[in-house]
Amino acid sequence: MEKTKVAIVGLGTVGTGVARLLLDHGDRTARHAGRTLWLEKAVVRDLRRSRDCDLPAGVLTDRIEDVLEDPEIEVVAQLIGGLEPARTIMLALLESGKDVVTANKALLAEHGGELFDRARALGRCIAFEAAVAGGVPIITNISQCFSANQILGMQGILNGTSNFIVSQMDEQGWEYDQAVTEAQRRGFAEADPTMDVDGTDAAQKLAILAHLAFGARVHWSRIPRVGIDQLSTTDMRFAKELGYRIKLIAHARLVPAGLELSVAPTLIRIGIPLAEVRANYNAINVIGDAVGDVFFHGQGAGQMPTASAVVADMIDVAVGRTPITFRTLELWSQRESPVAMRPDDDLPGRYYMRFQVQDRPGVMAKITTVLGNWNISIASIIQHEPDRSELQDGTVPLVIMTHEAPEGAARQAVEQITQLDVVNPNAVRMRVMNDHMTS
Amino acid sequence: MEKTKVAIVGLGTVGTGVARLLLDHGDRTARHAGRTLWLEKAVVRDLRRSRDCDLPAGVLTDRIEDVLEDPEIEVVAQLIGGLEPARTIMLALLESGKDVVTANKALLAEHGGELFDRARALGRCIAFEAAVAGGVPIITNISQCFSANQILGMQGILNGTSNFIVSQMDEQGWEYDQAVTEAQRRGFAEADPTMDVDGTDAAQKLAILAHLAFGARVHWSRIPRVGIDQLSTTDMRFAKELGYRIKLIAHARLVPAGLELSVAPTLIRIGIPLAEVRANYNAINVIGDAVGDVFFHGQGAGQMPTASAVVADMIDVAVGRTPITFRTLELWSQRESPVAMRPDDDLPGRYYMRFQVQDRPGVMAKITTVLGNWNISIASIIQHEPDRSELQDGTVPLVIMTHEAPEGAARQAVEQITQLDVVNPNAVRMRVMNDHMTS
Repeated sequence: MEKTKVAIVGLGTVGTGVARLLLDHGDRTARHAGRTLWLEKAVVRDLRRSRDCDLPAGVLTDRIEDVLEDPEIEVVAQLIGGLEPARTIMLALLESGKDVVTANKALLAEHGGELFDRARALGRCIAFEAAVAGGVPIITNISQCFSANQILGMQGILNGTSNFIVSQMDEQGWEYDQAVTEAQRRGFAEADPTMDVDGTDAAQKLAILAHLAFGARVHWSRIPRVGIDQLSTTDMRFAKELGYRIKLIAHARLVPAGLELSVAPTLIRIGIPLAEVRANYNAINVIGDAVGDVFFHGQGAGQMPTASAVVADMIDVAVGRTPITFRTLELWSQRESPVAMRPDDDLPGRYYMRFQVQDRPGVMAKITTVLGNWNISIASIIQHEPDRSELQDGTVPLVIMTHEAPEGAARQAVEQITQLDVVNPNAVRMRVMNDHMTS
Repeated sequence: MEKTKVAIVGLGTVGTGVARLLLDHGDRTARHAGRTLWLEKAVVRDLRRSRDCDLPAGVLTDRIEDVLEDPEIEVVAQLIGGLEPARTIMLALLESGKDVVTANKALLAEHGGELFDRARALGRCIAFEAAVAGGVPIITNISQCFSANQILGMQGILNGTSNFIVSQMDEQGWEYDQAVTEAQRRGFAEADPTMDVDGTDAAQKLAILAHLAFGARVHWSRIPRVGIDQLSTTDMRFAKELGYRIKLIAHARLVPAGLELSVAPTLIRIGIPLAEVRANYNAINVIGDAVGDVFFHGQGAGQMPTASAVVADMIDVAVGRTPITFRTLELWSQRESPVAMRPDDDLPGRYYMRFQVQDRPGVMAKITTVLGNWNISIASIIQHEPDRSELQDGTVPLVIMTHEAPEGAARQAVEQITQLDVVNPNAVRMRVMNDHMTS
């Protein structure tokens, strides 16, 4: 049987999982690739650190040159996180004639153009299924299975940490801080979870998906994003009363004027599959003009789901599928982006708004007058009789669901309302997902 | 730009959709394949029949020889249903040097071995994404994306007609006949829906998926199957009372002794994604030992979703991905099947049973004694106080949910119970899906 020599750079959690699949289950790659993927080298920084897998003698090394200088190693899983030295190592691997598999979405979101151009110039390829949604094979599905479609939109839960925290808040009634502590205790959140909870991680993944689906070359930092760190269980309770759940949604939609992209806590009607995604799962709904909507749900991270995606990529590279896909799709090439990102303020949407208001006559008239001035129509209002605990700071919650209105009008109306003397300055405003997008 | 000449054989609903995607949206195939798919010929039986799409002059023909004898046509979408002349035409296409894309699952389930062997011998390939679950790209996902996994099990709703009927019965409270009439009126069921409602269609698709996932070469007719045509709303109501919905489930599971395969109405706990699949949608949950469970949901049939899958296959063939996959996977080859189908009677499962019993003393003791003799343990029982309408034939429903028991014991226990003089001979017995299979 043919043999393809491969290497792993970075033997952390995912790297160890990849090593295990290659070493313990060589029969699978033989069956699915018609060849053996032979693990020749695994490069680590510290040789003395104990590892959770038994490597054959001579495989472990702390010298990247052992990979770069071995012309027989054809495919390398580059599993170092962060931007540097990951970028430099990736370029060195390409220069030395290796095809590269990576799970590093931050690197692609930041330096995708440079890396893909260099790979093309060198006749090499880069595979990155594991970079978005871990075990859910969304990269292959969008770039291969839906190629007869114009993708019209996508909505995804792309950050498992945030979804775990939000689900705990929803199901247990916990406040944000308590849910974060539980996520950290269960290993679903880092000691510093900032990148997960502030929407950065989801925006980086969305930038990659938007590139695949729409050819849009958008830097992730240009995607408007709101995290879950300001989310309150008060709003989750009101949302449920209105028939919705709140999820951190990465949203993309093709509209006549361009492309809408955003990451934000969003209300989704209960019963729609995305609203029912629990724990640390990921899910994506893709809408194609021919195929309709297709929904994917699975483990978005974790050792073996991510390793499953990395090894599938290594097989695809070794047998020759990825080189074809990489060549035909011209990802992150200098070709002009066919869609322009639409200016935010024109984006129409429905909104959930919560104001903390003083419980006295005339307040409702003042607020609804501002909304009327901005031409924002009200779909429903909730104001309950106050209980004592809510009245502690002298205000009660007033919740308004709007009909469709431009983002700019909604934002400015909320700003004006919070300047009223009867309204607390801390208002909440969230988008409501359009049901029509998900049939 | 490079050009690949293609043809369509059979211009029915799906064929017309394929022609539209190729003719109206050539830019997509150009963007995703780096080449034009040029529709050279469309072969039909009757040239005079009016068509729902405008073909350029010279494309339409009633002579298959126009395709067979044109060496420039490389890829053919063979979209004729049934076994003959579909099989003969497919062989002729392969012999004349064409790669073939098909949506005909009955043909593959019946003659897959012959057709794939012939294609291999001729150095050609066959693509069949559209044969199972239409727009849900399950073939590519199993044969490519999960290749680092041992698939442990699958549960699918693979027949949209049945799911539409069952969903209507569940949501509207309609009996089977009324739901069938509605499905026919809405175009979701044929005038003769036998193959859909008796489980044949789902068994054919399951045979194909089982071959891909487990290497099992099982003829669909050997898969035990029960349709939905005997399903009663009485059981749907009792199931809901117990916290379950009834769906027609195609089931596969790898067990130490071999492979379980079945198609049958099955109770699924409400809230599990498969239980929430509505209307004519298809869905599949795949469990891999590395990736965990991944759930897919989308349109399983219909003109454009199926055409989307066919054109994606044509692109994959034209760019060269399918030839690689076809060569490495050795589908339906003469290699021995690595798994044996397990004899039915040993399959363990949980069961829902409904007996119509006479409302008099001692009945419960007689029934539970038989279950005890077969070593079947009872998880829950429902017997409501009878209302007058239920007593018309002098019997009342008695519903029993069992703990896990072998299929053979459950079957024989029900047979013995229905021979009791206090029990109506028409009992109902259905499997309950194991929650652990779907996390």
